[in-house]
Amino acid sequence: MSELPAEKVAVGVVGASGYGGVQLVRLLTHHPAVELTYLGGDSSAGQSYTDIYPHLAGQVALTMEAVDLEAIADRCQVVFLSLPNGLACKMAPTLLERGCRVLDLSADYRFENLSTYVSWYGVERDDQAMAAEAVYGLPELFRDRIRTARLIGCPGCYPTASLLGIAPLLKQGLAQPETLIIDAKSGTSGGGRAAKTNMLLAEASNSLSAYGVARHRHTPEIEQICTHLARHEVTVQFTPHLIPMVRGILATIYATLRDPGLVRDDLLTIYSAFYRSSPWVTVLPNGVYPQTKWAWGTNRCFLGLEADPRTGRIIVMSAIDNLMKGQASQAVQCLNLMMGWDEALGLPAVTFYP
Amino acid sequence: MSELPAEKVAVGVVGASGYGGVQLVRLLTHHPAVELTYLGGDSSAGQSYTDIYPHLAGQVALTMEAVDLEAIADRCQVVFLSLPNGLACKMAPTLLERGCRVLDLSADYRFENLSTYVSWYGVERDDQAMAAEAVYGLPELFRDRIRTARLIGCPGCYPTASLLGIAPLLKQGLAQPETLIIDAKSGTSGGGRAAKTNMLLAEASNSLSAYGVARHRHTPEIEQICTHLARHEVTVQFTPHLIPMVRGILATIYATLRDPGLVRDDLLTIYSAFYRSSPWVTVLPNGVYPQTKWAWGTNRCFLGLEADPRTGRIIVMSAIDNLMKGQASQAVQCLNLMMGWDEALGLPAVTFYP
Amino acid sequence: MSELPAEKVAVGVVGASGYGGVQLVRLLTHHPAVELTYLGGDSSAGQSYTDIYPHLAGQVALTMEAVDLEAIADRCQVVFLSLPNGLACKMAPTLLERGCRVLDLSADYRFENLSTYVSWYGVERDDQAMAAEAVYGLPELFRDRIRTARLIGCPGCYPTASLLGIAPLLKQGLAQPETLIIDAKSGTSGGGRAAKTNMLLAEASNSLSAYGVARHRHTPEIEQICTHLARHEVTVQFTPHLIPMVRGILATIYATLRDPGLVRDDLLTIYSAFYRSSPWVTVLPNGVYPQTKWAWGTNRCFLGLEADPRTGRIIVMSAIDNLMKGQASQAVQCLNLMMGWDEALGLPAVTFYP
Amino acid sequence: MSELPAEKVAVGVVGASGYGGVQLVRLLTHHPAVELTYLGGDSSAGQSYTDIYPHLAGQVALTMEAVDLEAIADRCQVVFLSLPNGLACKMAPTLLERGCRVLDLSADYRFENLSTYVSWYGVERDDQAMAAEAVYGLPELFRDRIRTARLIGCPGCYPTASLLGIAPLLKQGLAQPETLIIDAKSGTSGGGRAAKTNMLLAEASNSLSAYGVARHRHTPEIEQICTHLARHEVTVQFTPHLIPMVRGILATIYATLRDPGLVRDDLLTIYSAFYRSSPWVTVLPNGVYPQTKWAWGTNRCFLGLEADPRTGRIIVMSAIDNLMKGQASQAVQCLNLMMGWDEALGLPAVTFYP
Repeated sequence: MSELPAEKVAVGVVGASGYGGVQLVRLLTHHPAVELTYLGGDSSAGQSYTDIYPHLAGQVALTMEAVDLEAIADRCQVVFLSLPNGLACKMAPTLLERGCRVLDLSADYRFENLSTYVSWYGVERDDQAMAAEAVYGLPELFRDRIRTARLIGCPGCYPTASLLGIAPLLKQGLAQPETLIIDAKSGTSGGGRAAKTNMLLAEASNSLSAYGVARHRHTPEIEQICTHLARHEVTVQFTPHLIPMVRGILATIYATLRDPGLVRDDLLTIYSAFYRSSPWVTVLPNGVYPQTKWAWGTNRCFLGLEADPRTGRIIVMSAIDNLMKGQASQAVQCLNLMMGWDEALGLPAVTFYP
Repeated sequence: MSELPAEKVAVGVVGASGYGGVQLVRLLTHHPAVELTYLGGDSSAGQSYTDIYPHLAGQVALTMEAVDLEAIADRCQVVFLSLPNGLACKMAPTLLERGCRVLDLSADYRFENLSTYVSWYGVERDDQAMAAEAVYGLPELFRDRIRTARLIGCPGCYPTASLLGIAPLLKQGLAQPETLIIDAKSGTSGGGRAAKTNMLLAEASNSLSAYGVARHRHTPEIEQICTHLARHEVTVQFTPHLIPMVRGILATIYATLRDPGLVRDDLLTIYSAFYRSSPWVTVLPNGVYPQTKWAWGTNRCFLGLEADPRTGRIIVMSAIDNLMKGQASQAVQCLNLMMGWDEALGLPAVTFYP
Repeated sequence: MSELPAEKVAVGVVGASGYGGVQLVRLLTHHPAVELTYLGGDSSAGQSYTDIYPHLAGQVALTMEAVDLEAIADRCQVVFLSLPNGLACKMAPTLLERGCRVLDLSADYRFENLSTYVSWYGVERDDQAMAAEAVYGLPELFRDRIRTARLIGCPGCYPTASLLGIAPLLKQGLAQPETLIIDAKSGTSGGGRAAKTNMLLAEASNSLSAYGVARHRHTPEIEQICTHLARHEVTVQFTPHLIPMVRGILATIYATLRDPGLVRDDLLTIYSAFYRSSPWVTVLPNGVYPQTKWAWGTNRCFLGLEADPRTGRIIVMSAIDNLMKGQASQAVQCLNLMMGWDEALGLPAVTFYP
Repeated sequence: MSELPAEKVAVGVVGASGYGGVQLVRLLTHHPAVELTYLGGDSSAGQSYTDIYPHLAGQVALTMEAVDLEAIADRCQVVFLSLPNGLACKMAPTLLERGCRVLDLSADYRFENLSTYVSWYGVERDDQAMAAEAVYGLPELFRDRIRTARLIGCPGCYPTASLLGIAPLLKQGLAQPETLIIDAKSGTSGGGRAAKTNMLLAEASNSLSAYGVARHRHTPEIEQICTHLARHEVTVQFTPHLIPMVRGILATIYATLRDPGLVRDDLLTIYSAFYRSSPWVTVLPNGVYPQTKWAWGTNRCFLGLEADPRTGRIIVMSAIDNLMKGQASQAVQCLNLMMGWDEALGLPAVTFYP
């Protein structure tokens, strides 16, 4: 492990009042190499942070400030942007120019090719150069590029769970890419803290449904990385579902094996080897399938595997905490890499069960 | 509608203390053509039924009795068997011989070919003739045979949701059967009332996982009917998941269309036509996907459809109440058919939302 | 039972898009003596009702209309008002003048003395005469007055659960009124369908808290009726809590007995006698405490009792469905009385458990 | 803070497979001054600990062993006993004699006067001397005695939440003790990991009920400490409720103030002063009431206060995580005191919200 810096790195969070923001604040206040120096958000500027989140009483002394990029750049070496889509791409250039490292949790910097973003997000953009510079912040696949990046496009929650389950399959050519089906299930915190009727407990509890079928915006994000892994164009079927729970994503992934003779033990060996140097991915033993709550409040991804000799398919189950490995703690994992620190620094590894 | 009988039909429930049993008791006490004359179960014999289920105070005056087949046959014209697998096949012959109609909610009479049952359930059976006589109690597909049956093998909860979603596809030859993937999600009441650690609220709440991947016993049951519909051997991929809610099943079904030119409107038209005479199946309009709670406490199945032109697949979402259309109320629907009554008699059609 | 009318009574619902509204629509479409002729609400006027609530597909053919009092009075003999506080008192006079019966589900007509309303609700009102004419719609206590009323102020959900638990105590002088403490717990549907951050599943699930301590607006409503029952001024302690569930209220009520020699059996006898003619109140046997889900989707109230010889207190547990007996089905119970019909007509009595 | 020991202290857990056990294992594996050397439990002896709890893969390498007191004493300096009531009192004497410190999480050592235990728990005991030696492990009240103890009777979950809310009232003579009513609400994990029907998700979800009214065994435990604080015999009313959530207790406490002129600000000042040296108790600001999930996975207790000038009562809301401050992490807090370490060592202070 590299040593900690003599001085802590000054870090700011823009958009600190949402769920992504409060995870970042919780993580960064306990991170041994970081000092949180700025919390921002226009709508709550002037409010004490513990007025918004009283459970942090005695832990966070900062007040929410307005979003003034010059002031932020003066006070922060690293800035996390945790804002709705379409805002980060207006802020990051100024911050980068002033020498900040930027980690964006929105979709703005996830696409190498802006035309994909434009067509799926319905927003005009002409900053292709900056988009192309940004590195996709999935450390298990792009560790080296993240180390030297100054701008990170942090992955969506569904793509994180999906790609960690798919990567060994495509990288090793084990499966037929055109057969990939991802049936994903998420807790409702993925919808954010803004009040929406369908996210009310009265509506979402005791029930279950799919949404965004055949047109969810995480589809092209998954496809971009699958295409990269398979080294040819890949189209996937992606279906998200809303589950009556707060946190957690389970992606159940189906693919037809190229070699139907592969058995579960073979696949466990291949997956274990693939993730040998990835401390945050746990390949579960034979016959154990992941529970999403095992990942609650941690940066871990649990993978379970099954091969079905009757159908020739592999079934991969990938479980994460959507707000952690699917969002905030993965961004801090990227920060650790960018700073040359241990990849695990300051990140929670074990939940309290049940 | 045919007229109600001058005298009510005497009905008994063996295995009345479980979740299937209490649904039957609730339905049959409110059914206008039925009189509940016997409730049985060896472990709770002698207990007043409202001691077991106090919410029925003032509604059910019966006491649980021991399982004495002769006594049951004396007092009942129709008997529902709601017991663990392997018991009904020991009781039904006696009851049938004595002239009772029998509706079995276990797996014992679901398989035309006993060898399938034997290999998936691991139990020896040699009553192939009786198994072959039993009719699979899915009224939307086997209405005519049910009308004249004396022994019904009521479908499992997952097969009901799955088959109602799949039937038009296979019957009309719209999809490639070997591409069928059923990703199903169920509330925990499907596991019954017996106390199991993994079904505790402390374990199952706030979490989500798959189970029985590639080997759940509802797989051959689904395949048997798919094979019947497609008129050739069909193998399906079936994956059940445990959802932190009490009731409800959502089956998300994937299949590759034979004609990739079919669009959603075409499919809605085909499905609506297929279920025109089936009052319990609602094909939802364009872009509306079913919520499982819409079916709570009712005999309805809600179907939502999507065609994905990017992948050439159809995605069908099928939602039911696992204890009702997936079990008890579907059995009463079969009873209505067997008795020549209106198919909807005494069955709840609308839930209270939310 | 009085006979049903030759013609169905025409009924309208103003404010049909909320949770109270959708319960009313569900109840009234299945009520044998009623025809639903108008559904209104300004914000959703023009929308098909099944666009708002797709689970009613095939059950309700009406479209939401703007709120035009003259048009409503032309088409309805009875009008339910299910609106935020402060609106009904502007509409009811016109409807009454045109000969309609009016049942208001808001707080506007719950107070005999308008000054109580004004001081707790912070709204000016000068229609004391109309307020005084309105009858408090709790049938178990005011059955006779409801029969002849033309304007009903339907009780709040907490007051319904609380007062049904308290009434025998105060009416018979069994308890010291100044010792009354009501610790009430409610599912989140009591907060309505409007999107609020604290009602999101992500916020309210897995958690529990009190709110409105010592100042909730249902306090004076409970006190008004307690004062009436005790025949002298009564002040109560009322504390509501938000529970991570959709429906249901449990009120746990504490009071010091005047005669500490009373035992549980005495109290059960007194309560059973008090509610002998009230089909919707079930006094549970010795040692059985109510579960809120026993009342789910029904008009029932379950009461459990305990006397504590160590402390000289009675503890009453009162469970209802907050949207049914606590709101919509109780309003229909009042309608039944106003029309001279059987009190139970068209009302659901038994839930599906679990 | 005192320094950490040169060598880690060897610690064992008997009864490690239950919910209390797995919290201890999680806490102790991350505690900087402790080495976990023994995990025991007769029923699971021989099983790898991660077979029981797969989410600990890579974190805990121990195997469950049989309960052999001599072997345990050889390998452990400190032993936590996390067993059903009535077992610890048979094990602790041997362990103490061999020089171990013992922290018992059952009720066996909570009562100074064994006759109270005998009458409420229905078990014969004749080890009054050892019972009298044991110290009640509530650090905020008995910090000094814990520091020098060798045997700790760790408090129950309800008593912890209740007593932290009550202590300032009785210690300062602010309230009339005979008016104390504790209406407590708990998540279902308080019932442990043993499979019971009423704890199934299907039963306990979507519902709410009281249990053990007027006779729950935590009553005398609360009364014992209240009596100690008030310096005269105190009887309390205690009512527990089962809430559809996994973790958390909220105790809503009612008491009549001796001086009805006291206002909320006075009470906040008194409570804040009382807990000034108690880092784990947070007195919330004016008008903020605790959410149980704020304490999830932490050793914190959040207190909210309200004075009601209309009734002369104080209402205290006390929220903890029942498995942490209510059980396992409080036991580790006691260990920290016994060892002369910082009271906060190795204990989690902040949850991830929501």
